[in-house]
Amino acid sequence: MPIDPALRSWIDIKPADDFPLQNLPFGIISTPDTGPRVAVAIGGYALDLYACAQLGYFDALADDLPTLGAALPRVFRRRSLNALLKLGRPVWLAVRERCAELLRYDNPALRDSELGVRACLLRRSEVELLRPVKPTNYTDFYSSLEHATNAGSLFRPGNPLLPNWRHLPVAYHGRASSVVASGTPVRRPQGQYLPAGATAPTFGPTQMLDFELEMAFVVGQGTALGSTVPLGQAESYIFGLLLFNDWSARDIQSWEYQPLGPFLGKSFASSVSGWVVTLDALEPFRVPGPAQEPAPLPYLQASGAHHFDITLEVLLQPAEAPEPTLLCRTNTQHLYWSMAQQLTHHASNGCPLAVGDLCASGTISGAAPDALGCLLELTRRGQQPLTLPDGSSRAWLADGDTVIMRGYAAREGLRIGLGEVRGTVLPAAE
Amino acid sequence: MPIDPALRSWIDIKPADDFPLQNLPFGIISTPDTGPRVAVAIGGYALDLYACAQLGYFDALADDLPTLGAALPRVFRRRSLNALLKLGRPVWLAVRERCAELLRYDNPALRDSELGVRACLLRRSEVELLRPVKPTNYTDFYSSLEHATNAGSLFRPGNPLLPNWRHLPVAYHGRASSVVASGTPVRRPQGQYLPAGATAPTFGPTQMLDFELEMAFVVGQGTALGSTVPLGQAESYIFGLLLFNDWSARDIQSWEYQPLGPFLGKSFASSVSGWVVTLDALEPFRVPGPAQEPAPLPYLQASGAHHFDITLEVLLQPAEAPEPTLLCRTNTQHLYWSMAQQLTHHASNGCPLAVGDLCASGTISGAAPDALGCLLELTRRGQQPLTLPDGSSRAWLADGDTVIMRGYAAREGLRIGLGEVRGTVLPAAE
Repeated sequence: MPIDPALRSWIDIKPADDFPLQNLPFGIISTPDTGPRVAVAIGGYALDLYACAQLGYFDALADDLPTLGAALPRVFRRRSLNALLKLGRPVWLAVRERCAELLRYDNPALRDSELGVRACLLRRSEVELLRPVKPTNYTDFYSSLEHATNAGSLFRPGNPLLPNWRHLPVAYHGRASSVVASGTPVRRPQGQYLPAGATAPTFGPTQMLDFELEMAFVVGQGTALGSTVPLGQAESYIFGLLLFNDWSARDIQSWEYQPLGPFLGKSFASSVSGWVVTLDALEPFRVPGPAQEPAPLPYLQASGAHHFDITLEVLLQPAEAPEPTLLCRTNTQHLYWSMAQQLTHHASNGCPLAVGDLCASGTISGAAPDALGCLLELTRRGQQPLTLPDGSSRAWLADGDTVIMRGYAAREGLRIGLGEVRGTVLPAAE
Repeated sequence: MPIDPALRSWIDIKPADDFPLQNLPFGIISTPDTGPRVAVAIGGYALDLYACAQLGYFDALADDLPTLGAALPRVFRRRSLNALLKLGRPVWLAVRERCAELLRYDNPALRDSELGVRACLLRRSEVELLRPVKPTNYTDFYSSLEHATNAGSLFRPGNPLLPNWRHLPVAYHGRASSVVASGTPVRRPQGQYLPAGATAPTFGPTQMLDFELEMAFVVGQGTALGSTVPLGQAESYIFGLLLFNDWSARDIQSWEYQPLGPFLGKSFASSVSGWVVTLDALEPFRVPGPAQEPAPLPYLQASGAHHFDITLEVLLQPAEAPEPTLLCRTNTQHLYWSMAQQLTHHASNGCPLAVGDLCASGTISGAAPDALGCLLELTRRGQQPLTLPDGSSRAWLADGDTVIMRGYAAREGLRIGLGEVRGTVLPAAE
């Protein structure tokens, strides 16, 4: 249930802030003193749920939810949200509601407790934000029509969109072990590629390092082997959303990917933002998706608004640059396939979904020339390099470049932000 | 270090037995009384390592290996081998050696203890054999030249072996969450496919259910993000081998797999055998691999014998049949790419490998007409159905069919078996 847009917190929230009372995304924070803790973001602060539980602020909730009671406060002192999610959807919904209650302007319980505020509220600028979820499995979809068409035309001129694309949300299994927290530097990978004009491959640092702007959802409820998920129930399996940078080495990818799909061209790293924004928080930003033509098969036929109006941006900051440059602005509403359709399709063969699974959208591009979510598209596979304000050009990422992705939904004075995911490119290993 | 082939156990081992003293594979057994336990197989018995530890049979070892000492006996009362493996390679090597010592013919310590034998030795026929490893990640290679050529010619007539195939071990990320224990029934999946002659897909139970005969290795030592593994060290990262049935729905697969690779056509189930056979046990069966032409790039260039002479068989038993029929006999030495090459390639871009990862070989076929490891090849994509002894024919698997895969290495009186992996096809859900 979304939180009343009119409600205010006793914590001061600025209009451009990503994390008002209506957002309350979950993450894992850490300080040298405390170690990892489950937290929710509120304005410039993180509310430490372990400290809250220790001070009794979750006691009432624990009385109502026996699975939470037995797990408190232990479940909040973890390195990932997975243990909290495993307690079940009613628990994570109730925990967020309790946080909203503690933080609303007229509740003195925490607000007026000097000890409570000191123990539970940490400035976000003073804590480390870790990877929020340990990805149990990671699946990457290919859900943007514009991206699939643009990328397809570069890899397969004359044959961009394959016959299956409009019938099912195409996807592949990604590598879960290399999903890293925002801020983790990404080392330029080495690998095999076929240099232009060569007849035999070479091995060395990728010459075509790219980012991919994606959104990922976190599975909050698992399914059993052999079970399926009707489309109408799919969203209840989703805990929340993350920004996702699916770093790609285009030369390695194009040499290796036939016939079984991307492998080492992707598996060296994927970066995720630190705060998981719940679907409840995004409820006011629902929009219908694009018309699907031809109509999908019945198990994928949706009615209603299953897409979300979320603005996404990619910025690039070279090592010496004083500030980042905007490369791309697009919107998740451009996605052809909704998250619900992705999840239902994923489970349609009985494949078990697990708590902590990440399902990424694939690169999100739009129709506008500046709405392209990766350099592959922005530079037409390096043929049309971008010129940056410092006069340097980029066909692909350079060592020292920092890629920053941001996302937010905004409407009628309400702003629900996704924060950011960033990563700096390190030179290849010697 | 392999165990002296001349050594005998005080347990009676028959010549056709898969599990002599020289094998000692690891698995997870369970009884209603005990719950899951780490065990090694010896002849018709399983040695319960938790019981052994409780009775002090690992005390001497624990003194030498501090990481084991602190973990005993807890690490042996788990639902997977992962916790044991995480203690490190020296520990799992030493545990197996200690088991060999306890079981050798001239050691009275366990042999002559009535209590010890009663507590530690269970008849294999009386215990349940669980999935030995919780797969952290699962990667499927495509390492058999014969399979890649045969399968490629059916999916892409005229263009079977793609240009990259002889330069790198092609692979894709598989789905770890649907890897199941031998004996788990496999429900016929539903999915999208394009019926022959149709222009639009349909959704329903697969009409082309297949098995794939594979071997998988279990990663026993992880690597850090950004690390690579030189080929000469690759085998030390491998804990042992399993038989692997990569069930496949060919109609779903061929409709969905372009351009990102197999997804739901595979992810409904993969079955693994219950006993993980160590590389040490297979040491006497090393053989050189096939000549690789053209020579691979330096990071994949091997000298020495990195392949293994292991006979593999697939048998099919229809629901009413009194006994199974042999469909295929092949050998792992036919693989073009060795496990060491697979692992080194996998880590070459810095992708972290994790303890418990499964890396499967891809279907293992040989040159002979009866050495084909899947129905796709055996029946030429259903065009040449097999006739079974009961007169029925099979283009693809029927409901009620049980697929059994077996493997063993045998030479000069020494037989190291891999046991079997089996699964029965259940009808699709209503």
